[in-house]
Amino acid sequence: MVPLKKDIKLVRSLQQKKFRNEHQLFVVEGRKMVDEALTSRFKLHSLYSTDSAYHPDKCHHVTKKEMEMMSSLSTPSPYLAVLHKSPETEQWPKTLDTAVVIMDGIADPGNLGTILRTAEWFGINHVFCTEDCVELYNPKTVQSTMGSLFRVHVHYAAAETIIRYLQENNYKLNGADMKGTSLYEYRFTNKEAIVIGSESHGIRDTMRQALDDNYITIPRHGHAESLNASVATSIILSELYRQKLHQ
Amino acid sequence: MVPLKKDIKLVRSLQQKKFRNEHQLFVVEGRKMVDEALTSRFKLHSLYSTDSAYHPDKCHHVTKKEMEMMSSLSTPSPYLAVLHKSPETEQWPKTLDTAVVIMDGIADPGNLGTILRTAEWFGINHVFCTEDCVELYNPKTVQSTMGSLFRVHVHYAAAETIIRYLQENNYKLNGADMKGTSLYEYRFTNKEAIVIGSESHGIRDTMRQALDDNYITIPRHGHAESLNASVATSIILSELYRQKLHQ
Repeated sequence: MVPLKKDIKLVRSLQQKKFRNEHQLFVVEGRKMVDEALTSRFKLHSLYSTDSAYHPDKCHHVTKKEMEMMSSLSTPSPYLAVLHKSPETEQWPKTLDTAVVIMDGIADPGNLGTILRTAEWFGINHVFCTEDCVELYNPKTVQSTMGSLFRVHVHYAAAETIIRYLQENNYKLNGADMKGTSLYEYRFTNKEAIVIGSESHGIRDTMRQALDDNYITIPRHGHAESLNASVATSIILSELYRQKLHQ
Repeated sequence: MVPLKKDIKLVRSLQQKKFRNEHQLFVVEGRKMVDEALTSRFKLHSLYSTDSAYHPDKCHHVTKKEMEMMSSLSTPSPYLAVLHKSPETEQWPKTLDTAVVIMDGIADPGNLGTILRTAEWFGINHVFCTEDCVELYNPKTVQSTMGSLFRVHVHYAAAETIIRYLQENNYKLNGADMKGTSLYEYRFTNKEAIVIGSESHGIRDTMRQALDDNYITIPRHGHAESLNASVATSIILSELYRQKLHQ
């Protein structure tokens, strides 16, 4: 199949949030991600490759130059898929039984993607994002999940809605902050919701009010002022998992 | 002081490695980083700001447009400093008494910077990089250290040189890998050198030979195939620090 010029224009436009919203589509790139996309819960819109042997039945064969026009990567991969956004990300689980993470205004797409990747590693299937978090379908978020966005469920809502839902499900909200109980001394429960603040503003008032002074902190030896948000989240999830294994 | 056109051209050129090497200079941006640079071990070459009240004795006052021409950031900060590269990064410590990290071919500038930031948090002052690691003075590395590059010492050398030096200092080399002793069960010694593999190739042969089958692995519950290199490093350093605190 030969792609039309308007296809290339469409794919290229999906680098912008405006057009991702208008078309309800997003892009994944790279062999591993595209392979996984084809068997994921996300419905395929169109498939492009410079490799003519790749799914010849449904793949548009493109030249390297055409791929460069479509790709958001500085070094384009030979594989690119356009997927329909999942309405499922809007659905809320009826029962929840693992720890969850709440992102309070995370702005960096790489941080959000990396957090999803680490969450999946430690068996966390649900991540909640306040509505002002960076978009899940941002190309940099998608690529930095390394495929975890196909398996971890991400729920965007107002802070109040997230708080109410988790409190109704008997979760304990716990904020990662510069001051609080030492992470290494805190004993995690089975229903833990870890709140991670934004890169520039930390945890904001609505969340702070719901936290009821439950804060954990990562002990520090050196003089660094803070940790990267995805690093802090990963350290906390690792300790949570360590305690679970060694209960 | 008013900057000359050739100053702007010089600063702009330092976004490229070729010119950083030629001039032995690099750039830091942002108020916090620039403030810290002024009291760091790095010698100041020149200082630029759109804020005419900022160090009027030594700062070149520039327009917003001039700053945009010099900056490597998509949203330029009002503060930018050009520093001389430190010859000190070439010096090797005579005695070493904390854990150290070895980067075996880390290619992503954000990963290297984030690792330095986390290393400092946990009191690790020396990081060793194989010569093919991304450059410390890459603008993205510099910015993602959030100032830790002013305090953590980074040593670039051939893998063999790093191995010999650490073995002579009685360090135990330990590779972070997909298989090995569980991080949570491994007992860290006081002289631990954690080897982190590159994003695409993992730990390579020269390092593997020196590791003598000492590997640690981060236990996994989900299906994620791997962790981001800076995330894996951070999780290991946190566990190392936890054990140190709770000895």
